[in-house]
Amino acid sequence: MGVVVPMEKGRPQAEADLNDLVALVADGMARVNTTILSRTGSEVTMIPEVASHLIASGGKRLRPILTLACADLCGYQGGEGAVKLAASVEFMHTATLLHDDVVDESDMRRGQVAARIKWGNEASVLAGDFLLGQAFRMMVEVGSLRALDILSAAATVIAEGEVMQLTAAKNTETTEDEYLAVIRAKTAELFAAACEVGPVLAERPRPEQAACRSYGMNLGIAFQLIDDALDYGGSSAELGKNVGDDFREGKITLPIVLAFRRGSEDERAFWRRTLQEGAIEDGDLETARTILRRHRALEDTVERARHYGAMARDALALFPQSPTKAALLQAIDFCIARAH
Amino acid sequence: MGVVVPMEKGRPQAEADLNDLVALVADGMARVNTTILSRTGSEVTMIPEVASHLIASGGKRLRPILTLACADLCGYQGGEGAVKLAASVEFMHTATLLHDDVVDESDMRRGQVAARIKWGNEASVLAGDFLLGQAFRMMVEVGSLRALDILSAAATVIAEGEVMQLTAAKNTETTEDEYLAVIRAKTAELFAAACEVGPVLAERPRPEQAACRSYGMNLGIAFQLIDDALDYGGSSAELGKNVGDDFREGKITLPIVLAFRRGSEDERAFWRRTLQEGAIEDGDLETARTILRRHRALEDTVERARHYGAMARDALALFPQSPTKAALLQAIDFCIARAH
Repeated sequence: MGVVVPMEKGRPQAEADLNDLVALVADGMARVNTTILSRTGSEVTMIPEVASHLIASGGKRLRPILTLACADLCGYQGGEGAVKLAASVEFMHTATLLHDDVVDESDMRRGQVAARIKWGNEASVLAGDFLLGQAFRMMVEVGSLRALDILSAAATVIAEGEVMQLTAAKNTETTEDEYLAVIRAKTAELFAAACEVGPVLAERPRPEQAACRSYGMNLGIAFQLIDDALDYGGSSAELGKNVGDDFREGKITLPIVLAFRRGSEDERAFWRRTLQEGAIEDGDLETARTILRRHRALEDTVERARHYGAMARDALALFPQSPTKAALLQAIDFCIARAH
Repeated sequence: MGVVVPMEKGRPQAEADLNDLVALVADGMARVNTTILSRTGSEVTMIPEVASHLIASGGKRLRPILTLACADLCGYQGGEGAVKLAASVEFMHTATLLHDDVVDESDMRRGQVAARIKWGNEASVLAGDFLLGQAFRMMVEVGSLRALDILSAAATVIAEGEVMQLTAAKNTETTEDEYLAVIRAKTAELFAAACEVGPVLAERPRPEQAACRSYGMNLGIAFQLIDDALDYGGSSAELGKNVGDDFREGKITLPIVLAFRRGSEDERAFWRRTLQEGAIEDGDLETARTILRRHRALEDTVERARHYGAMARDALALFPQSPTKAALLQAIDFCIARAH
């Protein structure tokens, strides 16, 4: 089942892909990738392997792309600063994935076996710490205290988000507000910081920093909500993971929050058994999808994502038309159109 | 110009008024009103007059109604506790209005001359403080530490919201996120607290408290956004103030945030002149409305409000069907349908 997303009124989404954005920052991203490779090196055995395992496994590198694009949007003239901050952002992201897998006891990540399975939990935690350390060293090299402030604050907020999620974990009675607070911290904060350091590097005034931050924050929320919907309705190809992973891991995401609240007592008992107690039986994923469909939980998750997408779009409205701005707006459509 | 709000898909809004809600809590509200009158008394000259001036001037008393209704929704059996907390909530609201008028240098409130014009700024500030004090005394009499915690935290957040607004005031480059943070604190927090103390009094478990809090918070945001839209498009009758008041006071509300960002340089110069510099000339309000229309700023403000309304609706989905639940859901429709 795909999630049926009605076309947004009057706004053709024909070209909702990331190609323009990727092409615009291709030179910078080549340098980011070189930097990433050179900074995963260490004399200490195992660290380079563990770090490279996940880094080499692909992923869209959306966050560093956003850093470069937002710097470009604000007229930043291609020094090494944006490249190093973009690489820092990707290291921060990779570090949280390594730590996440340990916390969630995940076996798979990006279609391959998780680092913690191959090298153990300790190595995964420490390789994550190593990458975080490298990220901070690169930020210091760039020498912008404001950018350091933004990215180190994000690191703290992300950690807080993880802890919030631990507390909320497996609680089917989580409210939508509580869930939003978690994904704001866990996911959207890094998107926001990745975007905000662009105008900071370009030494642009506060309204442009606030605009990029707001764009990133709301794009990040929309991105996560669509991921949540895809986990129950997409194909593995567009998802980078398997349909039903969230369900099997007992993750409380927005579709579940909505369906649980809207459901009958029998349905709530089903969610408690499968997600809270982890007693999943054959056919339960199909039942889950049927219940989600019954309550329009996936459609309404996409509808909520669309709201945040609209906010991200308006955040950039301050900037004059440019190819970079157009590509950043297209990235919003891309995020939401994934749910087609 | 009315704001044209398309009917929400499949959800008839024929009976979008507050009558059911008002009728359900009519007995309780009669006692709240008696309590309010008895607690505005003071030996000190002027305090009763200043306090009563605003209290007697009407207003929907939506916040204490929500306290009573949420207590009722959670099976609270009509003691004096809910009545006293409801009166406290209304006193907190009245105190912030008295203080607001001083901060904003407003001349009118609820269609009559503001207390500060009649008795001076000092008396308005101090009468507000008196009401806040009385609110806390009533809360203490109720004896629920949890309710005291919720309402006193709200008082702090509201004050923070006022200060945030001072900082953001007259800044046409305010982002939507920044504006939302202000109205969350200034307006929605008291709605949230008013609702949350209901299940607290009824000694219901945390999920019901969180649900009522979330309902109140999102209803409060939707309520404020519709108020913002009505200020440029409604009739004075439904608004309780005159169309264009926000404009004349240079208030940056969501319609302005959207139109400013979406507008041309000429239009931005217009908003800076009128709102930031306060140089308003004849015909400017009409121009403002034309620009807002050009960018669909009012329609999209209502669209945003609808998103928060949907969140408020889902927050209550946990509760079984009851007349009180139905009336609380109707209150959401009422809030949004005001923009018709």
